[in-house]
Amino acid sequence: MKILLIGANGTVGQAVKANLAARHTIVSVGRNSGDYQADLAQPASLEALMERVGKVDAIVSAAGNVHFGPLSQMTAEQFNIGLQDKLLGQVQLALLAQRYLNDGGSVTLTSGILSTEPIRYGANATAVNAGIEGFVAAAAIELPRGLRINAVSATVLTESLPTYGPYFAGFESVPAARVAMAYQRSVEGGQTGQVYRVQ
Amino acid sequence: MKILLIGANGTVGQAVKANLAARHTIVSVGRNSGDYQADLAQPASLEALMERVGKVDAIVSAAGNVHFGPLSQMTAEQFNIGLQDKLLGQVQLALLAQRYLNDGGSVTLTSGILSTEPIRYGANATAVNAGIEGFVAAAAIELPRGLRINAVSATVLTESLPTYGPYFAGFESVPAARVAMAYQRSVEGGQTGQVYRVQ
Repeated sequence: MKILLIGANGTVGQAVKANLAARHTIVSVGRNSGDYQADLAQPASLEALMERVGKVDAIVSAAGNVHFGPLSQMTAEQFNIGLQDKLLGQVQLALLAQRYLNDGGSVTLTSGILSTEPIRYGANATAVNAGIEGFVAAAAIELPRGLRINAVSATVLTESLPTYGPYFAGFESVPAARVAMAYQRSVEGGQTGQVYRVQ
Repeated sequence: MKILLIGANGTVGQAVKANLAARHTIVSVGRNSGDYQADLAQPASLEALMERVGKVDAIVSAAGNVHFGPLSQMTAEQFNIGLQDKLLGQVQLALLAQRYLNDGGSVTLTSGILSTEPIRYGANATAVNAGIEGFVAAAAIELPRGLRINAVSATVLTESLPTYGPYFAGFESVPAARVAMAYQRSVEGGQTGQVYRVQ
């Protein structure tokens, strides 16, 4: 398969690339790295990306920014960061996928454990991740031509514990290589409208 | 209690007002009606609203627009309508509530059955409603001073069947007066971080 991988240079993205590249052709995309550059927060950059890359068999997104901080100081503008980047950016990938995926192709988006397990400072992430999981369930019933869509929702990565560990008190971590298997399952499996939880 | 009711002129809003006005003082808000005017899609109008109304004991939102239409024709711009109006607008009410609610006060937001039960044309509504329900669960663990936050998620209203019935094939409807009881339960009860499902 020809697979477009957004966020290929991130911790999850690198693990997904290592997993999938053994069997498929990977076109890697990053904000400032990869074969092509695009920015989830710029819908036009995603359309330009698809126009340049052309038809693919799978689109995998392992990207997306949210605002992380105390609710007491949060502004609507800060909350909107996650809505425009991780949520709307990934939705836009799925909307474009309807035109740029070959028949039977798949879209795999990234949500995260905060969708169902809130932590302090994570209100934006919880709303965004829950929105992504909702979108996947809804989009799955309308996609044409056998196209599929799933999300991967992982807990905190073992590789990220030095940075994020203190915010995830008592959460068990998972190595990125295990998370990558959920993306593989979405791309190479047959299900649609699923959230693969790795925790 | 002094209760600020956003969307007081809608089908749900009127039923909520009829329920709560029997025991409380209602300050009604609409886009073009009510004691005060404000627009969920304009965060600044919500801050101006709270500044004029001052401290209240409860904020109830029975408002919010989403985009409804086929996924095959949906654009990022259309999807953003629901993100900026029903989702971010209601989030902004909750953010402001931290400054304008008396101790022990409550925020009650509106999601909807599509959060967990997708229908065709409803991808934006599902993502937005799921995001609201996620936000409520996350915000509840950070709100100070005994403040509470819940959401009401109703199925299609009996009063709305002439318009929306065909999109909700096989869904049982509920009268707005029953839905209003869930808002009463949120305002007058003691729970927080809940989604009251009326279906």
